[in-house]
Amino acid sequence: MNQQIILVSRPKGMPTDENFAIVETPIPQPKEGEVLIQTLYLSVDPYMRGRMSDRKSYVPPYELNGVVGGGAVGRVLQSKSPSYREGDIVLGNYGWQRYAVASADQLQKVNPELAPITTALGVLGMPGLTAYFGLLDIGQPKEGETVVVSGAAGAVGMTVGQIAKIKGCRVVGIAGSDEKTAYLVQELGFDAAINYKTTTDLREDLKAACPNGVDIYFDNVGGTISDAVMTMLNYQARIPLCGQIALYNLEKPDVGPRMQTQLLITSSLMKGFIVRDYASRFEEGISQLAQWVREGRLKYKENIVEGFENTIKAFLGLFTGENLGKQLVKVAD
Amino acid sequence: MNQQIILVSRPKGMPTDENFAIVETPIPQPKEGEVLIQTLYLSVDPYMRGRMSDRKSYVPPYELNGVVGGGAVGRVLQSKSPSYREGDIVLGNYGWQRYAVASADQLQKVNPELAPITTALGVLGMPGLTAYFGLLDIGQPKEGETVVVSGAAGAVGMTVGQIAKIKGCRVVGIAGSDEKTAYLVQELGFDAAINYKTTTDLREDLKAACPNGVDIYFDNVGGTISDAVMTMLNYQARIPLCGQIALYNLEKPDVGPRMQTQLLITSSLMKGFIVRDYASRFEEGISQLAQWVREGRLKYKENIVEGFENTIKAFLGLFTGENLGKQLVKVAD
Repeated sequence: MNQQIILVSRPKGMPTDENFAIVETPIPQPKEGEVLIQTLYLSVDPYMRGRMSDRKSYVPPYELNGVVGGGAVGRVLQSKSPSYREGDIVLGNYGWQRYAVASADQLQKVNPELAPITTALGVLGMPGLTAYFGLLDIGQPKEGETVVVSGAAGAVGMTVGQIAKIKGCRVVGIAGSDEKTAYLVQELGFDAAINYKTTTDLREDLKAACPNGVDIYFDNVGGTISDAVMTMLNYQARIPLCGQIALYNLEKPDVGPRMQTQLLITSSLMKGFIVRDYASRFEEGISQLAQWVREGRLKYKENIVEGFENTIKAFLGLFTGENLGKQLVKVAD
Repeated sequence: MNQQIILVSRPKGMPTDENFAIVETPIPQPKEGEVLIQTLYLSVDPYMRGRMSDRKSYVPPYELNGVVGGGAVGRVLQSKSPSYREGDIVLGNYGWQRYAVASADQLQKVNPELAPITTALGVLGMPGLTAYFGLLDIGQPKEGETVVVSGAAGAVGMTVGQIAKIKGCRVVGIAGSDEKTAYLVQELGFDAAINYKTTTDLREDLKAACPNGVDIYFDNVGGTISDAVMTMLNYQARIPLCGQIALYNLEKPDVGPRMQTQLLITSSLMKGFIVRDYASRFEEGISQLAQWVREGRLKYKENIVEGFENTIKAFLGLFTGENLGKQLVKVAD
């Protein structure tokens, strides 16, 4: 039998176990041009929370009682496409299920010789590309500039910080535990890191960590953390808006100081983006990221939970600030 | 004797007569490399309100008891510079005074044969260039797109709308009286205009006026008008942030819905700017604007108050939404 996780109700505020159900269904059969995949690793990501609400966004909402979609890496068990053979490792977007049938043109081959296959969901996948294009294309870092990253210990944030170091910037991370801030500075070479949960004055800590102000703020979180960083912008600063994790679970409209004045008085740029905006340049991004990984200049961290049945728990953990690096679920060997 | 308007106290909230004083001083004498100018026209602009507060911004605050600075056009009465002769008409930034001495390198010659000299403070000056670079460089209008302009009946706004029409866009203006909205549609060719003071539901009016959503929002005002427009953005919309006139006189921090989510879900760009960011391209801008004016494709409107003693009143009028077009003060013939 197959197992799938479906969305049975739309979360109001923070999602809970109740919003999901694990259901058993027959293992599907591939039609012409399709393949049957056994899931090896599943991705759980903050952006999925957005798709659980029923509102217009950059990706359509999940359907009620449908499988929760998202990135997964699996092994081809049966192929009715000339492009794939049994045993191939593939990356797809078919979501939280043990077995899936997918059209060959919606899959990408993963080369297990090049790097561990989990990296296709992390540093060489969506989070890595998000960091790469958001920082380089919107942020346009220049040597000697100061880059602040929020959500710095997440899969995107730690990649952003390391690329900024490669580009010669001063890098300051904001994260939610002393373990994380220590990791950012000691393991990843960040110049400073601030624990937003224990600081008594985030703005003062930012001033100390950014004596020359902020040229780039890579924003993964939004909310009051961003309010503080926005008061520190230099002339013609750039703010790639990647996520607003602080907001995903809000039940009310997000209210705070309007940002326009800060942007206006500093001639700064703020731009939302989603990795798909850069789909035509994915090859360039993966190739450069892989090179940095091979050279040891770009480290990655994966937090792997064992067992399909722990998927929901792993997802919920994203919002309590506990995960360090890319959160994955291992479903099969 | 000379007359000067000085700032005697910093406004809290809306400025009043009390914040200013008219003082009499001797007519200054030019030194080597300087010229003595008799003011013909003075400019009063919303951005000046920002400089009356004592806070970090893109231009330094005015000094207390100093002359209120700003654009002016005058006649050279006496020159100690080889660059200028008696009788030349010049544009300077020396502010609210009947006579001024300025260094030759801080002035620009105005050619009275080319266009009325007042245009150097309007459509061929700072407001025209602000419209030109903000719309074209940040907004990047494409044929068939929808452009919304707030503060549309101001000097910047009406130029923005007309350039957007030249570029083949649908143009919707937001302004504060029926006289203004009628002018925008009937005289300047805007496709629609909304009176924000009489509308019962700005968002519904915007939906009706923008059936294909909003691709560019040229923001001159901020506040709740902008909140409404921000909910209408199309994918990869652009928001040139030119002014926040609604905010200049606020005594408290400006609080409202945070914009980040709207930018994020539409992959949109918001950028603050000031015309000086484009100083190296002013010649290009003036030349193109002048060509459009000559061709009759770009109209301009000036609202000229007579008499130096009415300068403060003209300035205060900017914030009550009464002015249509560029507000000037005529000081001498």
